[in-house]
Amino acid sequence: MSFLSNLTFARLAHTFCRISSFEQRRCGELVMVKGWIQNIRKMKKNLFLDINDGSSSKCLQVVTERSDSMKPAVGDSVEVLGEVSQAPQGNAEIKATTLNILCKCDIKDGYPFTPRQVHPPEYVREYLHLRPKVDKFAAVLRVRHWATKYINDYFIDRDFLHIHTPVLTSNDCEGAGEVFLVRPDNEQLLKSMAKEGTSPDEAYFDRKVYLSVSGQLALEAATQGMGNVYTFMPAFRAENSKSPLHISEFQMLEAELAFISDIVDLTTFIEDLLKTVTTQVLNKCAMDADVCKATNAEKDVDLKTLLEKKWIILTYDDAIEILKRHKDDLKQELKYEEGLSKEHELFLVKHLNSPVFVTQWPKSMKPFYMKISEIDSTKVDAIDLLMPQVGELVGGSLREANYDRIVSCIPPALQWYADLRKFGYVPTGGFDILMEESQLYLIASKQKELGYEFQRLVTNYRKDPSSRKTPEYLRAKLEQLEQLWTTFNINNTELEPHAGTYSQHPYFEKQYFAKVSAEYIKVKRNIQQLLHNLEASSPSGSAVSTEAKDDVQHFKTPNAPLEEMDSPTPDKQRIKYLIRRQGVIIQSIVHLINGIDSIEVGQPRQFYEVKLSILHRFWDDARGLHQDICESADDVTALGYTPSTYLNTA
Amino acid sequence: MSFLSNLTFARLAHTFCRISSFEQRRCGELVMVKGWIQNIRKMKKNLFLDINDGSSSKCLQVVTERSDSMKPAVGDSVEVLGEVSQAPQGNAEIKATTLNILCKCDIKDGYPFTPRQVHPPEYVREYLHLRPKVDKFAAVLRVRHWATKYINDYFIDRDFLHIHTPVLTSNDCEGAGEVFLVRPDNEQLLKSMAKEGTSPDEAYFDRKVYLSVSGQLALEAATQGMGNVYTFMPAFRAENSKSPLHISEFQMLEAELAFISDIVDLTTFIEDLLKTVTTQVLNKCAMDADVCKATNAEKDVDLKTLLEKKWIILTYDDAIEILKRHKDDLKQELKYEEGLSKEHELFLVKHLNSPVFVTQWPKSMKPFYMKISEIDSTKVDAIDLLMPQVGELVGGSLREANYDRIVSCIPPALQWYADLRKFGYVPTGGFDILMEESQLYLIASKQKELGYEFQRLVTNYRKDPSSRKTPEYLRAKLEQLEQLWTTFNINNTELEPHAGTYSQHPYFEKQYFAKVSAEYIKVKRNIQQLLHNLEASSPSGSAVSTEAKDDVQHFKTPNAPLEEMDSPTPDKQRIKYLIRRQGVIIQSIVHLINGIDSIEVGQPRQFYEVKLSILHRFWDDARGLHQDICESADDVTALGYTPSTYLNTA
Repeated sequence: MSFLSNLTFARLAHTFCRISSFEQRRCGELVMVKGWIQNIRKMKKNLFLDINDGSSSKCLQVVTERSDSMKPAVGDSVEVLGEVSQAPQGNAEIKATTLNILCKCDIKDGYPFTPRQVHPPEYVREYLHLRPKVDKFAAVLRVRHWATKYINDYFIDRDFLHIHTPVLTSNDCEGAGEVFLVRPDNEQLLKSMAKEGTSPDEAYFDRKVYLSVSGQLALEAATQGMGNVYTFMPAFRAENSKSPLHISEFQMLEAELAFISDIVDLTTFIEDLLKTVTTQVLNKCAMDADVCKATNAEKDVDLKTLLEKKWIILTYDDAIEILKRHKDDLKQELKYEEGLSKEHELFLVKHLNSPVFVTQWPKSMKPFYMKISEIDSTKVDAIDLLMPQVGELVGGSLREANYDRIVSCIPPALQWYADLRKFGYVPTGGFDILMEESQLYLIASKQKELGYEFQRLVTNYRKDPSSRKTPEYLRAKLEQLEQLWTTFNINNTELEPHAGTYSQHPYFEKQYFAKVSAEYIKVKRNIQQLLHNLEASSPSGSAVSTEAKDDVQHFKTPNAPLEEMDSPTPDKQRIKYLIRRQGVIIQSIVHLINGIDSIEVGQPRQFYEVKLSILHRFWDDARGLHQDICESADDVTALGYTPSTYLNTA
Repeated sequence: MSFLSNLTFARLAHTFCRISSFEQRRCGELVMVKGWIQNIRKMKKNLFLDINDGSSSKCLQVVTERSDSMKPAVGDSVEVLGEVSQAPQGNAEIKATTLNILCKCDIKDGYPFTPRQVHPPEYVREYLHLRPKVDKFAAVLRVRHWATKYINDYFIDRDFLHIHTPVLTSNDCEGAGEVFLVRPDNEQLLKSMAKEGTSPDEAYFDRKVYLSVSGQLALEAATQGMGNVYTFMPAFRAENSKSPLHISEFQMLEAELAFISDIVDLTTFIEDLLKTVTTQVLNKCAMDADVCKATNAEKDVDLKTLLEKKWIILTYDDAIEILKRHKDDLKQELKYEEGLSKEHELFLVKHLNSPVFVTQWPKSMKPFYMKISEIDSTKVDAIDLLMPQVGELVGGSLREANYDRIVSCIPPALQWYADLRKFGYVPTGGFDILMEESQLYLIASKQKELGYEFQRLVTNYRKDPSSRKTPEYLRAKLEQLEQLWTTFNINNTELEPHAGTYSQHPYFEKQYFAKVSAEYIKVKRNIQQLLHNLEASSPSGSAVSTEAKDDVQHFKTPNAPLEEMDSPTPDKQRIKYLIRRQGVIIQSIVHLINGIDSIEVGQPRQFYEVKLSILHRFWDDARGLHQDICESADDVTALGYTPSTYLNTA
C-alpha cells in the first residue's frame, strides 16, 4: 500500500465519487471514495470493507491489503483511492491503492451502535445526533428528500407559485387551544415592553402570537392575486398528550387552486399529484423506498395497482350506505352524524379495493370555510381521500364564496378573510397533505418487525447445540431478549390506547402482543432455568436472583380484547379500562427494574441512561394515570383500585 | 357579445391560458384568460382592459365592446374568452367574444387601492391580505419563488440532500436570550402536566423549548452520515426591538459540505451558487426582477460585472491594512479587535469594486464551532462575504474537528455536538444566507423612491396652469402631499437610529431627509396660502385653520449629522441623542394630528384607521423613549429635557 502525495490527494478531493453514481465509472478508472465503514470481512491477505457515504442504501466493496499499522474498524470515516474493478459476483468494487482513516470510531468510547445488529427504533431515537449513521433512518431522509423535490417540481411545472406562509401568526385558527404560544425568553424584555392591563404574553407583539397550524388562510389570500399557489412549511399542534402518535411539529403541504368550481377538478388534481410523485420517488430511489416499505407498510398493499387504476369517488351518503350493508363486519357502531372512524375508512378502502375520495359531507362535520353544495344545501363540497393502511391522507374543499355566509360564522379577528370576498373574488379550492401522517402505522409495523427479530432469536437459540450454551452465551441471549422485550413493551404501551380506533389493524386483530409475550415468558424461563442449573453446578459462577424467575409469572396477556375508546363508553367502563392500562404500565416498570437487576455490571453508561429515561417515562405515565383514575370516580376502591393496587399488579 | 354555453365554458376552463405563457399562442387561436382588471381605457365603441393574473408583471390587453348591461371596473375578477390578435403597436391582445365578471370590486366597499396610483409600502402593509393584488408585492413573491426553485435545483443537481431541520429545539444556541419560547396556549393542560419544582414553561416538553435560530448544528449531525446536506427553513430571532429592520421570522438557507478542509473550497462553492442562481432568476423573470430592482437597489450597481468577474478573497488582516491606508475616507474609527462596521464593509466592496470574501478572522470575534486555522492559531477559518449595498450577506466557516477544543467551550447540553467528533468524524464546512437580509436597504431605497414621487408631484403642481388650481384641486394635492410625507417621515424615524452604522449610505450621506422636508415645507406653505386666498375671496369656501400653517415652521432639518451609535459614546451624548430622537417623534405626531385636522370629512373609514394606528405607534415610541431618557440620567433637566419638552418641540 502506498501513500500519494498531498497534491494528488488535493487534486482528487474535488472529484471524489458518490457511491450512488459509482455505476457510471469504467473498469480501470482511478476514483476516490469517501465515507464510513459499515462492515468488514477479514481474509488472509485482504480486507473487504463495505463503504457507505449517505448517497444511497448501497454499500461499495473496497478491497485492501491487511496491514499491521492501520486497522480499520466499523464506523471509521475513510478516504479510499483505487481502481474500479469487477468483483467475482459481478458487482463493481474498488481495489484500494490508498486508504486513509480520517477518524476512528471506537465502540469503547460509547458508540451506541454495534455492527451487524438491527437496533430497535426506540433505542436509535435515544441518539438523535447519530441517527444519520443508521441506514434505515438515512433511507427515510433520502425518500423524504426526493418526495420534496418531486412535489416542488410537480407544482412548479404547473405554474403554481411557491409561497412561504408565515409560521408566526395571530390567528388561533382552530380555537381549541391546541396551539403553541410564542414569546421572547427574556423576562426583562417582556417587563420593559409590558403595557397596563395586558398580559406579558402580549407584550412583545402587542397581541398573542401562535405557531401556525395551517397556512391555508394565507394561501387563500395569496391566490386572490397570484392564481395557483402552494406552500410546504412546518406546522405545529399542541395536542393534549405527548404520545408519539401526535407530533408537535410536522411538515405540511398545502395548495390552493384558483378558478375552480367543481370538486372533481380537485380530486383529479390530487390523484394525479400523488400518482406522479409516488411513481417518481419509486423510480428514483427504489432501494431506499424498499427499506422504508419493509418498515412502514403491510406487504399486502399492491402499490402498482394503486398507481394504475382510477381512484373511486363516493358521496358521504353513499359511503354510509355501503358501511350499513356491512355493519356485521364492523366492530364500531356507525352513526351518520359522527362521521367515519378509522375502522370505517379502512373498511371502505379494502372493500372497494381502491383509494376512495369521499365528497359531499354534512355541513355540521366540516369547518366554516367549506363551500355549501349547490346540489344540497345541508352538504359542503369537501373531500377526504382515504388510503389503504393510513385512512384519511388528504383533506380539502372548495371555499365558500358568499360574503354573508362567511361573515356569519367567523370571529372578528378574521374579518379580513371575509373581506377577500368583496374585492374581485375568484372561486378557489384547496387541500393539505401531512408528510408525517402515518405515525401509528409506523410504530405498529415496527412492532411486527421486532416480532420477527424476536422469533429469529428464539429459533436460533433453540437450534444451537447445548455444547454452545455456556453461562456467557446464556447471559448474552438473555440480554438480547430483554432489549427486544423492553422496546416491544414500550411500543405496545403507546399503541394500546388506539386499539379501539385501529381494531382492524393486524397488530390488534391478531393479538400480536399477547402472542409475543407468551413466547417471551417461555423462552426467558427456559434460559434462566438453564443458567441457574449451570451456575449451581459451578462453584465459581455467581448466583442468579430468584426474583428474576418470579416476575415472569406476572406476564399474562395484558391486552385481552380492549374497549373501544372512541365510542362513548360508560364512566365505569372507562375507569376499568384505565385501571387495566395502569396494570400494564406497572408490569412494564417491574419488568424493567428486574431486567436491570439481572444484568451484570460493565455496560456502557449510555445503556443505563436509556434505561433510566424509559423508567422515568413509565413512572410519569403511571402517576398521571393514577391521578386520572382517582379523579374519575368517587369510589375507585369499589372497582378494585386500592393503594395496594400497584403491589397486587406487580 | 355572446355568451357561450356552460358546456363550452367548462371545456375551456381546464385549458385557460396563463398570461406568462400567452406569447406562445398563435393569432386567431381561441383562448380563455382569467384574472383581475388592472386598468381600463374607454373608447367610443370599445373598452380596452389590462388583465393581470399573477403569473407575470405583464398585463394582457383585452378589447371588448362597450355595453350598458355590464360595466367592468378596476379590481373586478373576470373570465375572458376571445381570439388572439395583434394590437396596432405589435403586442398580442385578445378580441373578446365573451366577458364574464366573476366578482365586482367596489372602491366604495372599502377597497384601499385606487387605480393608477402607486401606494407607499407603509400603506400597502396595512392591508396584508390584499397585498398580492399590488404588482410590486406580487413581483417580489415571484422573484422569491424562482430564487427558491433555482437554489433547490442547484443543491439537488450537486447531490446535496434537502433536510427539514426542526423548528422546535431545546438548544438555546445563542445563549443571549434572543430566542422565542414555546408552550401550549392552554393553562389547564400545563397545570395538569406540571411537575414539582419546575416552571410551567417546562411542563409540556419536560424542558424549555425554543424556536430555532439556526439549523446548523442539526445539519452538522446529518452531514456525518449523509454527506453534503442543506436546509431551507424559517428561523426566528427575538431581537430586543421591534424595528422592521429586525424581523422575528425569516427564511434561511444553510448548507454543510462534507469532506472539505480548505476554506477556498467553500468560497468557490458560495460564489458559484450565488452567480448561478442570480443569473437564472434574471433570465427567468427579468421583468419582475426589474420591478424589484427599481425598489431595492441603487442604480449604480452593475449586476452584470458582478456576475462575470472572479470575486476577491482577502484575509481579515489584509482588509484592516487596506482600511487603515484609507482611514481619512472613513467616518467610523477602525479598531482591530472590534471587527468591521457596515461602513467599513461597504468601503472595501466599493474600493475593490468586487464582492469580497474576508477570511482568517481573529478567533475572539467568532463562535466556538469555527475551526482554528492551521496557519495561525489565533485565527479561525471563517468567511464573511461582503456585497455591494448589503454588506455581509453570507457567513460561514470550516468546523472545528478537535473534540477537546470543542468540549472546552460548550454548555453541557451540547455534549452531543462534541460527541460527533468521536465516532468517524469527517471534516466539514458550511454557511448560511438570510433571504431577508437587506431589510434596511429596502426601506432606505423606498425612501428614495418616495422622494422621486414627491418630486414628481411638486413638478406637476408647478407646471399646472393657475386656471386648474381650484380649491378642490388644491385640497387633493395637499392630501397627496400629506400621505407621501407621513410615510416618508415614519420611514425616517425607523432609519435614523442606524445613521451611524450606515453613514455611507446615500440616504444619510446626502441628507436626503433634510432636503425632502425643506421642499415639503415650501410647497405645502405655497398650496395652503393659495387655498387660503381662494377661499377667503369666495364666501362659500370653508376657512382653513391657521394652525396648519404654523406647524410648518417646526420642520427644520431634524437629521443634522448624527452621533455614531455603534461606537461607544459617552452617556451624556447618548441621552442628547435620545432627546433629539424624541423631538423627531413628537414632531411627527404633531404633524400627523395637524394633517388630519386640515383634511375634510368624507375619507373612507380605513383612511382614519391607518392614521390612528400610525399615531398609536408613534405614541408608544415616544412613551418608551421618554422612559429611557428619564432612566438614563439623574438630571435630564440639565440637558434641556423638562416635562414641557414635548410642548417646546411641538
